[in-house]
Amino acid sequence: MKDIVVELLSERGVPLSEIAHLVLELQKPYHPGLTLDDCHSSVLAVLDKREVQHAILTGVALDVLAEQQVLPEPLCSIVARDAFLYGIDEILALGVTNIYGTIGLTNFGYLDKTKPGILRELNSHRERVHTFMDDLVAALAAAAASRLAHNRRQG
Amino acid sequence: MKDIVVELLSERGVPLSEIAHLVLELQKPYHPGLTLDDCHSSVLAVLDKREVQHAILTGVALDVLAEQQVLPEPLCSIVARDAFLYGIDEILALGVTNIYGTIGLTNFGYLDKTKPGILRELNSHRERVHTFMDDLVAALAAAAASRLAHNRRQG
Amino acid sequence: MKDIVVELLSERGVPLSEIAHLVLELQKPYHPGLTLDDCHSSVLAVLDKREVQHAILTGVALDVLAEQQVLPEPLCSIVARDAFLYGIDEILALGVTNIYGTIGLTNFGYLDKTKPGILRELNSHRERVHTFMDDLVAALAAAAASRLAHNRRQG
Amino acid sequence: MKDIVVELLSERGVPLSEIAHLVLELQKPYHPGLTLDDCHSSVLAVLDKREVQHAILTGVALDVLAEQQVLPEPLCSIVARDAFLYGIDEILALGVTNIYGTIGLTNFGYLDKTKPGILRELNSHRERVHTFMDDLVAALAAAAASRLAHNRRQG
Repeated sequence: MKDIVVELLSERGVPLSEIAHLVLELQKPYHPGLTLDDCHSSVLAVLDKREVQHAILTGVALDVLAEQQVLPEPLCSIVARDAFLYGIDEILALGVTNIYGTIGLTNFGYLDKTKPGILRELNSHRERVHTFMDDLVAALAAAAASRLAHNRRQG
Repeated sequence: MKDIVVELLSERGVPLSEIAHLVLELQKPYHPGLTLDDCHSSVLAVLDKREVQHAILTGVALDVLAEQQVLPEPLCSIVARDAFLYGIDEILALGVTNIYGTIGLTNFGYLDKTKPGILRELNSHRERVHTFMDDLVAALAAAAASRLAHNRRQG
Repeated sequence: MKDIVVELLSERGVPLSEIAHLVLELQKPYHPGLTLDDCHSSVLAVLDKREVQHAILTGVALDVLAEQQVLPEPLCSIVARDAFLYGIDEILALGVTNIYGTIGLTNFGYLDKTKPGILRELNSHRERVHTFMDDLVAALAAAAASRLAHNRRQG
Repeated sequence: MKDIVVELLSERGVPLSEIAHLVLELQKPYHPGLTLDDCHSSVLAVLDKREVQHAILTGVALDVLAEQQVLPEPLCSIVARDAFLYGIDEILALGVTNIYGTIGLTNFGYLDKTKPGILRELNSHRERVHTFMDDLVAALAAAAASRLAHNRRQG
């Protein structure tokens, strides 16, 4: 299942290396020796969690079905225009960040608001719908950063 | 939008009166004079909330698309068989109960585990997929009960 | 830290074996060969998580300070009488159940509503305040049950 | 109860006007005619919610008891040094932002990470403990901003 999810992220324009870059930016200030490889491993560890896999499968399906205009109305238009008040994309993301505790909330919100790196690209895509994807990527990066923070203290 | 949501619930076999019955069962012990009409009004007030409407539109779309086998695999099979560990149905429901504070969590969990009334019917349906619907109905009833509890103390 | 938490639970009248019994009741129907020892191990694994430890330390401190009437008013009275609408006890519990995904919500709500075993004892205690403890114990049992459910499918 | 909460915020160095400034910064880009008065009213409306009041009473009590070294150890040291991995401060804040739906999560995380205005002052205070207060203020501002966003679309 994890391979399917990694493949799906890649097909939708999100290679894991881009998520690892977000994690590195978040954690470098607190963890000077951190490498991009460490961050990549942490993203992979988050993707091992079943609930994370389910959130990605579900969110990406909704993006794709909105893109193909297969979703019923009025949902299709709401998802396709990434309505600011939709809220369900953030709920799914919350399911991802919570797996490593609530400390991930802060990083999730920061990424979702400032849209660095791959998040800016996803958000400015003209033809593709990434309503769920941008929140999921921010949530994955935030969860992988929380995981590193927890492990560092315990190590 | 609210009318669309009420119509959608009804089409999928959930008249508001059935949700009102669940609310009455939950709140009667704490609130002896409560009528089915009060409960019906409280369900309607919950359905005024935009995030509740979005959760219902999204969850029901996923149920219907799983039923029609339009969802991509492996998501379609997971939703169609209501996998015990799927978890995304509970996340959406959490978005509904939280609107009236966390006291709704207890009632949501209780309804989801014991499946009284309409919830049992939804769960035993042979041809229709109600993976999201049963959690959404439990969440709506729990939110409407929380709303009554909050109003009563403030009244 | 884990030893401190186990000791604290025991001092406040909650031996781990009682939590293990709640887990066994929850999971037995789905997992016939499950033993009390398996459940005990799962509770211990949940108690390894730092956020779970922090939730317990915080909730028990609030119970004890309410018992000793050291909390400022009006908070002290609200916690001491376990106000139905307080809500903060459920929020802390949510932090515990979420660690193993949202499937724990259902079991948490069910236990919190039906109050089997040790939960009934905690709730009927005359001199001690267990406003936070009863939700924390229900959340621990629900999280340990989710953990068993996840591991079983993956095993 | 609301007056007690407003007074408590003020005593701990957080006048409502400072929270209103945070709300104005968050919402101005999306809502050009917005005034500081509108933001102040929105903060007051959030403070009407019982669960918000309870979260503030509880969080501030924990800050004050940590300051006075009345909390039991090891909790007292964890709260007093605002341990990065404590997590319970974010859980309480989540209870506040959720009242207006999950769209508040993004603004909460952004404020908590960038610490503008009053949040920077709270965080750099040498003698006082504001472990809970800074998250609560960020959550109040985020909730008041969500409320304005919801009302604007519905208006």
